[in-house]
Amino acid sequence: LNGDFQATQRLARYVVESDPEDVPHDVRHEAARSLVNWLACGLGGSRHEAIQRAVAALRPFAGPPQATLIGRRDRFDVLHAALLNGMSAHVLDFDDTHLRTLVHPSVPVASSLLALSERQSISGCDFIHAFVLGVEVECRIANAIYASHNVSGYITGTAGVFGAAAAASRVLGLSAQHMTWALGIAATQAAGLREMAGTMSKSFVHGRAAQNGLVAALLAQKGFTSSERSIEAPRGFARVLAGVSELEALTAGLGERFELSLNTYKPYACGVVCHPVIDACIALGKQLACDPTEIEFISLRVHPLALKLTGIKKPSSGLESKWSIYHSSAVALVDRVAGEHQYSDERLNDPCVSALRDKVTAEADTALADDAAHVTIALRSGRTLEHYVEHATGSVARPMSDAALEQKFLTLADGVLARSQLTALLETCWQVERLDDVSSLARLSTPAEI
Amino acid sequence: LNGDFQATQRLARYVVESDPEDVPHDVRHEAARSLVNWLACGLGGSRHEAIQRAVAALRPFAGPPQATLIGRRDRFDVLHAALLNGMSAHVLDFDDTHLRTLVHPSVPVASSLLALSERQSISGCDFIHAFVLGVEVECRIANAIYASHNVSGYITGTAGVFGAAAAASRVLGLSAQHMTWALGIAATQAAGLREMAGTMSKSFVHGRAAQNGLVAALLAQKGFTSSERSIEAPRGFARVLAGVSELEALTAGLGERFELSLNTYKPYACGVVCHPVIDACIALGKQLACDPTEIEFISLRVHPLALKLTGIKKPSSGLESKWSIYHSSAVALVDRVAGEHQYSDERLNDPCVSALRDKVTAEADTALADDAAHVTIALRSGRTLEHYVEHATGSVARPMSDAALEQKFLTLADGVLARSQLTALLETCWQVERLDDVSSLARLSTPAEI
Repeated sequence: LNGDFQATQRLARYVVESDPEDVPHDVRHEAARSLVNWLACGLGGSRHEAIQRAVAALRPFAGPPQATLIGRRDRFDVLHAALLNGMSAHVLDFDDTHLRTLVHPSVPVASSLLALSERQSISGCDFIHAFVLGVEVECRIANAIYASHNVSGYITGTAGVFGAAAAASRVLGLSAQHMTWALGIAATQAAGLREMAGTMSKSFVHGRAAQNGLVAALLAQKGFTSSERSIEAPRGFARVLAGVSELEALTAGLGERFELSLNTYKPYACGVVCHPVIDACIALGKQLACDPTEIEFISLRVHPLALKLTGIKKPSSGLESKWSIYHSSAVALVDRVAGEHQYSDERLNDPCVSALRDKVTAEADTALADDAAHVTIALRSGRTLEHYVEHATGSVARPMSDAALEQKFLTLADGVLARSQLTALLETCWQVERLDDVSSLARLSTPAEI
Repeated sequence: LNGDFQATQRLARYVVESDPEDVPHDVRHEAARSLVNWLACGLGGSRHEAIQRAVAALRPFAGPPQATLIGRRDRFDVLHAALLNGMSAHVLDFDDTHLRTLVHPSVPVASSLLALSERQSISGCDFIHAFVLGVEVECRIANAIYASHNVSGYITGTAGVFGAAAAASRVLGLSAQHMTWALGIAATQAAGLREMAGTMSKSFVHGRAAQNGLVAALLAQKGFTSSERSIEAPRGFARVLAGVSELEALTAGLGERFELSLNTYKPYACGVVCHPVIDACIALGKQLACDPTEIEFISLRVHPLALKLTGIKKPSSGLESKWSIYHSSAVALVDRVAGEHQYSDERLNDPCVSALRDKVTAEADTALADDAAHVTIALRSGRTLEHYVEHATGSVARPMSDAALEQKFLTLADGVLARSQLTALLETCWQVERLDDVSSLARLSTPAEI
């Protein structure tokens, strides 16, 4: 690549010039699946303590009640709604994953777009198109940086802000020049540290990406200027945040394939790199005829990233236990599921789960794929059980079905909205492209007046 | 340092436990000088196009009119006021500098504190104390990272957010535990790229540091959790953003000396690393009896950082010309001053200045201090003039006097507030510690009703 490579401007031009007809049907259907999963997580997370505290802290400073908070009666200004809905949709660590980079694509893009839809009318067709384009930009940026960036900064915080900016800029109808500035204003807000895992600040990083990307688009709309080479310049985003100067991945094959096709949804409420181990432990738990106290030890062989990202041996809270492959395997073996309840303080401190957790050892095996795992259980009796998972449930090779996504939606949203409202909302999500105005989706996501 | 070094918690405890009596008189006077300079810049920048566009973009989403925008009639919510006042005070590139790190200390700390003072009563004494502590935290963090960070990320964006968080947390009366979380929430928002130089986004980075630090304090106040080792952890701020693991500078001699003592104020409206060259060119301009067209070439020898940070050869706008040592020397030679007007589009495109700019060459000399420069002018007549500056005006060794700061204040604020209001405001700044409630400072900074 020569020094004149204009990655930022090329991405901006692509987003401005893309035609909705260019997006294949299966990609648009994947967008609807992402929307179902994002709303499921947003509804499920909407009463989390992290959201309660953030709402209490920010309420006195919020603007007009322009936009819905998913799953809540509160209304906030559009910018705070993007933040808080992004936080709700991520706080359970149950949202979608672009597995190659571990970006969570929907939170920044969908949270900013839905909030904006309550300020200006956006058709379902335009919403899905802008969503696909926003995910494309954020995942391409993630592809360019993830190898050097992933284990340090939070990639959804840093790449996601571009996705939110691109999607919002598209529905605002910005020119390529203004969209280039929006990407620059996004770049200079790119932030987030993996050190936040297991604390409320993790969801904040993700919600901020949605809000900051939206602010970038709104500033650029008014002619607020920025660098026009914010991604690729020597002092730009890619080199400063990730040390990357080879940026072909940003534009190679642009418009010919869609990163959204690689989106995946979690069947389990924890870090995605744990999932193959959970599959194995659920299978072994079903085979296990004996009491868990009969287990001598549990030995995991996993992809190295699983230990890097979920290596917390003794989690101190339910939230932190989502980042523990040790807790995940113990609780999955006992409960034979791994939903939100398995990552509660209660299950974390359960004596049986806790005793089993101490018997888990894990080793990294570079020969394993990142969606594969091998688990061995040794019993006091001398017997051993083994299970190998080639592809985890919810991986690209073994995706969750539409029906499984619906079930996840209904389970997470249970008690937040009335059952009849949930089925109407699901139906609207699947048919989103037929909506004249997607703000009806937002209205359906808030509890009806009693 | 062993792996247990608790830098974040120690900084938090220091800020919580510090007694106003511990701050020496000269440091408190330096705080008043910083305040005068910050307000001067905020008033001077308040009608800049960047501020107009940001106000227009954000106005529809702003909360209640709780707080003053310096130099303007508009009122915004406290969070937006912190952002917009921070932007106003930085947009002219005329604010203060901690020379060792090139942090601009006052923008994040003063902008968040003054906005907060309109939400809760803060005495002048507490304001100055919190200001000193916020600057201490931000400059110590900058000291720890600047060597590896300065030429890539914007250090005021990344270190400044901690200063704003610490100062706001102090006046909110947070416990050490809550302040530790506030520093963590700040850490995960630390952002800013030097690539933004010469665009409106540079001021945005600085204002965001004020706003984001304030948000961090307000979230922590409500018990919003974060990492407790956000600065020093392996995946924390210092290693991820700057690759730094030697963090002694964060706490060495804490409470025994004050970084604010090293604060400096700019006599010239451009990047501080240009200032020794401008001193030399003004001096040479006064000696030069002939027409500038008689000049054959101008040759600069400067500290290497001056070329790295202000090396733009052909600036394309007045704003960008603040980052050009070539424009700075040419315009200083012709105009014999280097105020805001010298960095206007008009002066940039003046044929005489522009012709002279093309005759400037610059070379880095590692033997020169960063506040020194050597300038040689060769005339067509064969005569040469030379000038060596050992310490630039406004450096730690040759500080601006209180009277010079007042003159800067009056020049920048001229036409923004009535002259009588300006003298009252100046008087209030110098006597700030006597105020029962510093919100009167904010009220004095807005144009009186006609």
